[in-house]
Amino acid sequence: MCSIDVATSSVSSKYFATDVLKNRVGVYMETTKKFLGLTCQKILKVGRDDPRRAIHSVKVGVSLTLVSLLYLLEPLFNGIGQNAIWAVMTVVVVLEFTAGATLCKGLNRGLGTLLAGSLAFLFEYIARETGKVFCAIFIGALVFLIGAMSTYLRFFPTVKKNYDYGVIIFLLTFNLITISSYRVEDVLKIARERLYTMAIGSGVCIVMSLFIFPNWSGENLHNFSVSKIEGLAKSIEACVNEYFSDRETNVGKDNSMEDPIYENYKAVLDSKSTDETLALHTSWEPRHSWHCDPIPWQQYVKLGAVLRHFGYTVVALHGCLRTEIQTPKSVRLLFKDPCTRLATEVSKALMELADSIRNRRQCSPEVLSDHLHQALQDLDTALKSQPRLFLGPNGPNNTANMLALVAESTRLKPEKQLSSVKTESSALYEWKSKRVSKQLEVDGRFLRPTLSKIAITSLEFSEALPFAAFAALLVEAVAKLDLVIEEVEELGRIACFKEFDDHVIVEVDEKSKMEINLPSDPVE
Amino acid sequence: MCSIDVATSSVSSKYFATDVLKNRVGVYMETTKKFLGLTCQKILKVGRDDPRRAIHSVKVGVSLTLVSLLYLLEPLFNGIGQNAIWAVMTVVVVLEFTAGATLCKGLNRGLGTLLAGSLAFLFEYIARETGKVFCAIFIGALVFLIGAMSTYLRFFPTVKKNYDYGVIIFLLTFNLITISSYRVEDVLKIARERLYTMAIGSGVCIVMSLFIFPNWSGENLHNFSVSKIEGLAKSIEACVNEYFSDRETNVGKDNSMEDPIYENYKAVLDSKSTDETLALHTSWEPRHSWHCDPIPWQQYVKLGAVLRHFGYTVVALHGCLRTEIQTPKSVRLLFKDPCTRLATEVSKALMELADSIRNRRQCSPEVLSDHLHQALQDLDTALKSQPRLFLGPNGPNNTANMLALVAESTRLKPEKQLSSVKTESSALYEWKSKRVSKQLEVDGRFLRPTLSKIAITSLEFSEALPFAAFAALLVEAVAKLDLVIEEVEELGRIACFKEFDDHVIVEVDEKSKMEINLPSDPVE
Repeated sequence: MCSIDVATSSVSSKYFATDVLKNRVGVYMETTKKFLGLTCQKILKVGRDDPRRAIHSVKVGVSLTLVSLLYLLEPLFNGIGQNAIWAVMTVVVVLEFTAGATLCKGLNRGLGTLLAGSLAFLFEYIARETGKVFCAIFIGALVFLIGAMSTYLRFFPTVKKNYDYGVIIFLLTFNLITISSYRVEDVLKIARERLYTMAIGSGVCIVMSLFIFPNWSGENLHNFSVSKIEGLAKSIEACVNEYFSDRETNVGKDNSMEDPIYENYKAVLDSKSTDETLALHTSWEPRHSWHCDPIPWQQYVKLGAVLRHFGYTVVALHGCLRTEIQTPKSVRLLFKDPCTRLATEVSKALMELADSIRNRRQCSPEVLSDHLHQALQDLDTALKSQPRLFLGPNGPNNTANMLALVAESTRLKPEKQLSSVKTESSALYEWKSKRVSKQLEVDGRFLRPTLSKIAITSLEFSEALPFAAFAALLVEAVAKLDLVIEEVEELGRIACFKEFDDHVIVEVDEKSKMEINLPSDPVE
Repeated sequence: MCSIDVATSSVSSKYFATDVLKNRVGVYMETTKKFLGLTCQKILKVGRDDPRRAIHSVKVGVSLTLVSLLYLLEPLFNGIGQNAIWAVMTVVVVLEFTAGATLCKGLNRGLGTLLAGSLAFLFEYIARETGKVFCAIFIGALVFLIGAMSTYLRFFPTVKKNYDYGVIIFLLTFNLITISSYRVEDVLKIARERLYTMAIGSGVCIVMSLFIFPNWSGENLHNFSVSKIEGLAKSIEACVNEYFSDRETNVGKDNSMEDPIYENYKAVLDSKSTDETLALHTSWEPRHSWHCDPIPWQQYVKLGAVLRHFGYTVVALHGCLRTEIQTPKSVRLLFKDPCTRLATEVSKALMELADSIRNRRQCSPEVLSDHLHQALQDLDTALKSQPRLFLGPNGPNNTANMLALVAESTRLKPEKQLSSVKTESSALYEWKSKRVSKQLEVDGRFLRPTLSKIAITSLEFSEALPFAAFAALLVEAVAKLDLVIEEVEELGRIACFKEFDDHVIVEVDEKSKMEINLPSDPVE
């Protein structure tokens, strides 16, 4: 518009420029507002996801202010002096999110400092007797040796896992004291003062993490285990439901990354490092009783390993939904009921396990319920009742298309299911010719990634094969469930969970009341 | 002996005591010697497993000695003074095993220090104008606010991942400067000196990690990917071989933890955190060219994710070896050849991929070879040629035991395979009665973990079901192989790997020479 009306007066152009400016400022303000709004939302979300984060932040702020008082208040400063700053450093470095992590770091720091201090003073005592030049050489050699040795030590798996931070602090303190001792006369006094202030800093950290809104690693480990079991329970049920659902899944597309099923078991698959870190920190946390361990961290790690293996079965089951060759819907529907029932029972058993851990009670002896066995048996019966199903479509003895027969018997049109199956020879020729032309064209450098997909779908594997895999994996999941139950029971035993109370179940599941209460009814 | 011969003379008893002492010392010496020998072996093993560890240790020692010279040598000390100690601290904390980790920490430290310094001086400028008491309150409030805010910031996933260390250093430096400024007059001078010495320390670290026997994270990431692919290749072949091997596997026993097959794919399953750490450090390493990325770390992470998913299929395949219900050996043997061939081809393809990554060349367009397709087709044919196999043993239409027929046709005694299959009713009754008596005895508290195992084995699922699952998973592995190839090709493209040279293959595989060299022979 501006470029067309060249003859407009300077006044209107001035107005125009102001308008443009106003507009731009408006847009800019709008963008800034939006950006600020989004940032605020993000900031609030982090706190809302886990309010302990906000509490921890305030705790750090308060601890820092407390130790900085050592420096700011006149009487305290006169007592402690310049070295008060080390208390601040200790708090910044040691105070961690959970009590276990803080204790782990704090004790590592303490141990490292003490060890380094004693060693450094021993060597200082030796060096002091010698001349200045020799002393410098001696210190240089010491720094090299201790530096190289303790770095090498950090590569040992046990040290790396438990004492990595301690070794760093050891090295730091040792060097500080040894090198300082060359110039400063009264190193011992400085060291003592620093140790005091570090102890004050550590004390503040310990009080803050153990007594004020404590956040236990053991608790996190416990809750993490519960949520993992629940995730598996949900995903196995969702998997089976999706397998038998009517809506079309986009087969072959590997969008499993945004899948709700994947979301449920994702945490389990990659849980190893989280498990181990939490367990390590838990091992540093104080026990409430010596009689039995309230948080047996090794057992949680074991349970985690078994859950991961259960998770791999779920992944394979999930893979059956996305695989290239699919059993026709009509055939799958024949087995919908027993499969769904079995999955529901497995999921129910897992939920009962999660519940028992959450409430710190031993799991119900009925966790492997009769329903589960009934479901297994039903699946078995269903599989046996359709023996012709597992025939290939072109079997030599029985050339009639068995799948078509089965489909017909359930009154569905067979053409729909079978139309997508190409004859293998034509598809393979197609693929071959494509390949050759491709190779001639682009000098054989790029390979179409879908080649073997074409090849797989063109083959006429017994069409029940994928379903057989699905069913076998479901049965496998039941077997893995056993291992999970075993570990959960062991956990209950070691952690002295309270005994199973029949009446808890009564509220949960009215139907199973009759079966459970039979032997122990007179007790109450 | 001593307690029996009470009447022996004091002389002999003295000799006896000396003997005992000698013996004890001997035993003690022996034990000590053994212990020392074992320790030495362990120490040497850590270095022998990866000689770069020893080199790194020496590097740390040398760097520490170098920076301690700042303090020990008279002329250097006169120039820099007491603050030389900060160079030592920087080296201890920043110098890490790989160049990427060192740069990541060093730059984080530098950034954190600079930001904290500027902010602290800004506030100090404001505080200086006010009275002493107000200044103390102002500093206290600042320490609280900045402490809480930066701790909260550490909970943001992006910050946590990339800048966690930087935020800690920011907090540390900010507090040091702000609090010190209350008592010390010339904080600016001290800060400047510390910054110098820190820069010297960082410089030493950077020179040591980038130029003297550098150890690149990118290189590690690259090699880790290669070893993961090779591990998968080995384990899939081993899995299939064990499935068809003659020796009895101890079914049901979950000793997969010490299994060589498990050892091969273990690294893949838990690779997520390693992958991400290596990729993060790689992202800080300098690139050799701007044109194309020699180490595209995001692509390696993507490849890692696809490999993990391939790994889950291998786990499921491995699970088939350990499952409760097993297809009889005689039946399995019918499909031994095509399955083994398919596994060999998949393994070969993976090996070719690993090889191509290792040699930084694009993978052969023949990576999905005709052999693989042939193997797939053979499996298909084999499955179709045995259509009766997938019948349940007690099918309603065809009550003759098909499995027995098949086994007979391969001239094996059917009794051996079928003897272990109990009739379902008897096993279930057995289980039920066990359960009830158990419940009455121990008040229903403990559940035998093997209950559902009994139940599963007592059911007579179509006995071919487990084999069907095995075959389906094998086909699934081929489909997953596609995704792996896709990512490896993408990697080759992004990283500008050298083009595929036909003649490399010639040396490896004489047979495929004819097929490959056809179109591009005249070029050379």
